[in-house]
This record gives sequence, C-alpha cells and structure tokens, in this order.
Amino acid sequence: MIGTELLLGETIDTNAAYIAQRFAELGIDVYYKSTVGDNWLRMIEVLAQALSRSDLVITSGGLGPTMDDQTRECIAAVVNRELVINQNALAGIEDYFKQINRAMPDNNKKQAMLPDGAKQIANSWGTAPGILLELGNNKVIIALPGVPRELKGMFNESVIPYLEKHTQRKKLVSRNLRFVGIGESQVEDLISDLVTNQTNPTIAPYASFGEVKLRLTAKAETKAAAQELIKPVEQEIRGILGQWLYGVDDQNLEMVIGDKLMQTSATLAVAESCTGGLIANRITNVPGSSCYFDRGFITYSNQAKEELLGVDTQLLSSYGAVSAQVAKAMANGARTRARTDWALAVTGIAGPGGGTATKPVGLVYISLAGKEHNKVEMHRFKGAREQIKYSVSQAALDLLRRALEEK
Amino acid sequence: MIGTELLLGETIDTNAAYIAQRFAELGIDVYYKSTVGDNWLRMIEVLAQALSRSDLVITSGGLGPTMDDQTRECIAAVVNRELVINQNALAGIEDYFKQINRAMPDNNKKQAMLPDGAKQIANSWGTAPGILLELGNNKVIIALPGVPRELKGMFNESVIPYLEKHTQRKKLVSRNLRFVGIGESQVEDLISDLVTNQTNPTIAPYASFGEVKLRLTAKAETKAAAQELIKPVEQEIRGILGQWLYGVDDQNLEMVIGDKLMQTSATLAVAESCTGGLIANRITNVPGSSCYFDRGFITYSNQAKEELLGVDTQLLSSYGAVSAQVAKAMANGARTRARTDWALAVTGIAGPGGGTATKPVGLVYISLAGKEHNKVEMHRFKGAREQIKYSVSQAALDLLRRALEEK
Repeated sequence: MIGTELLLGETIDTNAAYIAQRFAELGIDVYYKSTVGDNWLRMIEVLAQALSRSDLVITSGGLGPTMDDQTRECIAAVVNRELVINQNALAGIEDYFKQINRAMPDNNKKQAMLPDGAKQIANSWGTAPGILLELGNNKVIIALPGVPRELKGMFNESVIPYLEKHTQRKKLVSRNLRFVGIGESQVEDLISDLVTNQTNPTIAPYASFGEVKLRLTAKAETKAAAQELIKPVEQEIRGILGQWLYGVDDQNLEMVIGDKLMQTSATLAVAESCTGGLIANRITNVPGSSCYFDRGFITYSNQAKEELLGVDTQLLSSYGAVSAQVAKAMANGARTRARTDWALAVTGIAGPGGGTATKPVGLVYISLAGKEHNKVEMHRFKGAREQIKYSVSQAALDLLRRALEEK
Repeated sequence: MIGTELLLGETIDTNAAYIAQRFAELGIDVYYKSTVGDNWLRMIEVLAQALSRSDLVITSGGLGPTMDDQTRECIAAVVNRELVINQNALAGIEDYFKQINRAMPDNNKKQAMLPDGAKQIANSWGTAPGILLELGNNKVIIALPGVPRELKGMFNESVIPYLEKHTQRKKLVSRNLRFVGIGESQVEDLISDLVTNQTNPTIAPYASFGEVKLRLTAKAETKAAAQELIKPVEQEIRGILGQWLYGVDDQNLEMVIGDKLMQTSATLAVAESCTGGLIANRITNVPGSSCYFDRGFITYSNQAKEELLGVDTQLLSSYGAVSAQVAKAMANGARTRARTDWALAVTGIAGPGGGTATKPVGLVYISLAGKEHNKVEMHRFKGAREQIKYSVSQAALDLLRRALEEK
C-alpha cells in the first residue's frame, strides 16, 4: 500500500480489505501488510523486506503519471532490472486518451515503462497499467494502481485468473445471503443454534448499509466441493429467514426488482419527494433498466405534486405532504400519468430540519400502486439525511419486491 | 495493527487512518504501518522491527481477554520484561463490570497484566486497558485495543495529551483544493514549477472520483502559522487553475451550487435521461435544498420527454434522443414547466448497451437554461455505467456552477 495520503489518514484503505478477501477465497494466506508513503528509501526498504519473506508481493498505488508516483522505479531498483517501454502498455494508454477525446500529455508515457521482463496488466478503467513480474525464484510481484475502481477491475479481470492458475491451496468459498426489513440481532436470534453448531461452512452475520448479510464460508479441496458444503446450510437458513431474504452476493435490491419486472414484462414509474431521485437513480443503475423504467417524478414542492401527479390541493392542506393519503395519491397519480403497471411513491422528512412533534425527522410514507394493488406503509428511520434517504429507498424497493414475489 | 480479521479483509482498518490523522495534526511523522495476524512469531518480528526503526510505536488490537489476544505478552517478550499485575488496571476492569452489572469472568484478569514499568491507559469504553511503556532509550510503546470506539476515546483522552507534552514537533496543516473539468496530468503540467519549488507547503495532486484534488501541506510551530504558509501558495494556484477550482476540503459540487442558489434566491429544476435521478439525488443530499430545488423530471422514455417536458416528436425523430437539440429542448421545457430560474438537462448513453458507431457509450449532451442563458455541451466519458452516470452529473453540476459564478 503505497501513498502518503494513507499515512496522513486522508484516505481510508479499502483496497487492502478487498485484496485480503479475494486472497482468502483463493486460499492464499496473507501474513503481512505494510503501508508506506511516497518516499523512495522507505519504499525500497519495505518492498525488499516483503520480497524476502513472501512468495507473492502485491502493491497498490504509485503508478500514476506524476513525479510522486515511483512504484515502477522502486520495483525495478529492488529486483535490479532496467525500466523498458512496454508497447502493449503504451498502446493501452494512447487508446484511453483517444477514447476520452483528449491529447495524451507527455508525462503519461512514463506509465508504460515497466521493469524488464514484466508483463503489463491491462487497465480498462484508467491510464495506469499494472505490472506482473515473475522472478526466477518462484516469487511474483504484482503492482496495481491505488484508485479502488481500477484496482478492483484489474484484480477481477486479470489477477484472479492468474493466481487461480498458479496456486494449489485449499479453496475457500464465501456466499453472502442478503436480508432487508429485519435487524442483525433478530437474524442472529433466529439462527443462533445453526451459527454455534456450524463450522464448515461458518456462518457470520453482519450489518451492512440498510440491510443485514449472512456470510457462509466453506473450505474444501475444490471450489465445487466447497459450494456443495454451503448448499444444505443455505437451504436451512432459507427455511427460517426466507421472507426477508432478497438476494445473494452482489445482487442488490434494484437488480432483483429489475429481473422480476423483466420476467413479467411490467413497467414502473416512481414519484419521489424526500428521496429526491435516489430511488430512480438506484433503479437506473441497473443496465437495461430502460426496458421497464419509464419515468420518475421528483416532486419536491407541493406545487410539483399537484401539477405532475395530480395530487389534490385539498389533500395536501388537510393531511400535509407527509401523510398516508398524499403518498397514496402520489402513487396513483404517477401510475395513471405514466401508464405503467406499477408506481412507487415516497413522501417523508429526511431532515435535519423540517421535523415537528407529530411528524418527526425520519417519518416516511411509502405507497405502491398496481393493477390490483394499493398499499401504504409508514416507517420511521433514524440517522443523518443521506442515511435516512437510503433507508427509505430500501424500504420502498422492498415493498415493490414483495408485491412482485406475490405474483 | 494486530488481528487476523484485518488480514482476512473482514474488517476495514479505520483505526489506522484515524491515528495517522491525529499524528499529522500533532506534527509526528508516520513512516510505516504494518498489519499482522494473531500469530506469535510474526507479531514479535513486526514489533521488534518497528522498535528498531521508530521512536514511537503504537499498536492496536490484541488486548482482549481471550487466548487469541497476545499483544501484552508480545510487548513483554520484545522488551524483555516480566508481565506484572497493574492494580489500577485491575480496579478499572472490576469497575467496568460493576457498571454493566455483571460478574467479572476470570479471564478478564489477564487484561490487567502489563509489562513491568508500564503505565495503564484507562479505558472508559470497555474492559481492555491500554499500555504506555517508556523505554530508557527515548523510545515509547503505546498499545491500544482494536475496537474503534475504545481506541478513539482513549487516544483523545490520554494519548494526545501525553504526546503533546512529550513532543515538540511542528504542527502540520493540510488543505485540499478541488477541481472539476480538468485531468490530473494537466493540473500537474500547469503548476509543475510550483510543485517542484515548493517544499513548505508541499503540493500533491491526486485524482479522485470524477475530480482532481491538490493537497497543500504546511508545517510550522503552530497551526495558525502553518495556515499562513498555505495562503500565498493557494493564491498562486488560484491564479493558474481558478477556472476549474470549485471548492476546498469537504465542500462538494452540490454544496457549492446550493450556496450560490441560496445567495441569489434562485430556483432550479432538472430533467434527466441517462443519469436517471442521480443529479437530483445529489442536489437533494444537501440539507435545506428544498429552498431552491423545486422538482425533477426523469424522462427515461421518449414519450416521457414529450409529455413531461414538451420535447417535439419531430426533434426526437430527426436528431434522436441523444442530441444537442433534444438536450436544449429538455432544459427549456423543464424551466418553462417548473417556472424556475434555472433548469439543467442531460441526455446520453450510460451503457453498457445502446451505443452505436456515431453515438457511442459515454456520449452525453448537457444543457443549461436560464433567463439569458441557453448552453449545450457535448462530453464523452469512459467507464462502467455508474461511473459514466457520475461523470455526467459532475459535468452537469459544473456547467451550472460556472453559470452561477458568471453572475
């Protein structure tokens, strides 16, 4: 982990945990992690030491085009090789600038200089190619950029396949079951016997942003054998917690909903007040969402609720914008005006201002309108503004998910 | 940093960044950070090395009551001292259990065993007392528990006052200047002389999500003096890069825009196609945004563009939804229908599907409509779907920012 910003504490190092997780899955033991600033002598020292005690050394950071970035030079110095231009890497960088329609500055050329004998690890997310250097003594150095998006993309695309081919350890497989609408301690209570008795796979509950996850981790000779160990335990958990389980691993609520809408050829519109576009944003993060998502109404002002959704002025003045009645009228208005199969509406108080004794910050009404469907739910969430917005979006998407599963 | 969970990637190490920030503020240089699992030999190795190269070694983790927790034993072994019971520490642990109304288990006694000559660092947040051990050779070891709440509490309450008393280092102040619409290497090109010649403050450019930051870091006897050193250099940078500079430190684009709209009592509406609500979501993340944000139209389908924004069918069929003409019509339509001072519109292809040779993925048109304002910009972004959406939102918010600054 290379970068002065890490030692200044300005950046929290999420790459390290990401890499460590992937290594665990590959059955590779991680014994040491070191962080060092953009300082030549200390970089040399730490890299030399890492090479002396480990078979595989992976670095992140210091591959940029600026003078600060010295990882390339450092690796070359430690293994005593020249830096030479790598034509593949250069072509990749030139290509990147072509695609974003900008001239390539001269100092980006430096990024194509790799230690003699090294292969480039292609970077489709930025300009910094990674380095894969196999040393004669069965040791390997892999250098990746520090930008998390680039590091993760390259790790998945190139490093994992490489390591899978070159390691023969026991394989670790993890599977995450994802739950919404239930708390971590309730999950733990309901499956406490299982958690205690299971050792392979192990079961670890943890609370994540707006949801709870259960991680099942099994170890076996092969990936397939580890997966087989997980299956019966997952079945047992589904029997107990099925109603709150919405997805596994990288599936999020918006993907699950997208799949179900696609399967039923149904369309969706949303009307958002307090979430201000977050629900539509999440829905449209899913590739292909234009097949089922037609439009969204972000009706922040009362006037917008009246004009865009046809909410009755009377309703707004009698019950207030944050009310079950208005939520229902918003959902119905959105469904009618957009002529979609489903419409989801939310109205609430995201805070920190705007709360009253009877309508406190975090109070929200969520409504779903469908052909034979017209539901309103009241929720009360806690936290800062963005956290409340996110919790509301989870509850709204989950309301839709449950309706789609009833079908 | 001690704990196998850190090397398995199950826990993201936020303590390290926290400690590093406090050290930076105290003017203490952090040169190395090492992470090691709960393994005796490797703990010994890492601690011995740390002591050999640094004056102050701080550890976190491994102070719990279980067999895994060996930091106390490890420190005692490396400095060759006995572990002895510390009566203050024992009293503190007994007191903790009294407060939570539980009997103290026997294995918690182990936590009061400190290396001979060490002082306890009181822990009001849990059972694990910290260790402060001054060695004769001007070296100090500080051991804190790994639970972030306990570590932070003890660091603030005891470690900072101790270090302030025992170090007479200079204070470090950092300031981040934030730029949008310009790349990292172009920033560095334009200020390369400054970067080379400036040593106090130092200037470090780094690319962040959708923007570039310059970190100015000054060192002086006092915080105020360090801030004074930054001022003239910041002025010089503003002279060169002012047009791309939008904020400092924690300010993001949506906050800057919010301030300017508030100051001018102006209102805003947005019309989004490819960003699907992200722009509105960002705007409404700012507390108080209901003062200037009226509504948003998420017009994913062509029909929605016609119905909600009055975009001409003719325009859509002649130029296509992703065109300068349609972007302009969307912005004008949004402004007219919402009766706001400003309206921002985007239309583009977020991918991964939907691209063609003439209209590739990442192509986007952004339009801003104001009283005497009607601009369209074309951009071309790279990356995965969410990355493109974010880049588009940055460019759109920046277009509005520049217009608001012209005023």
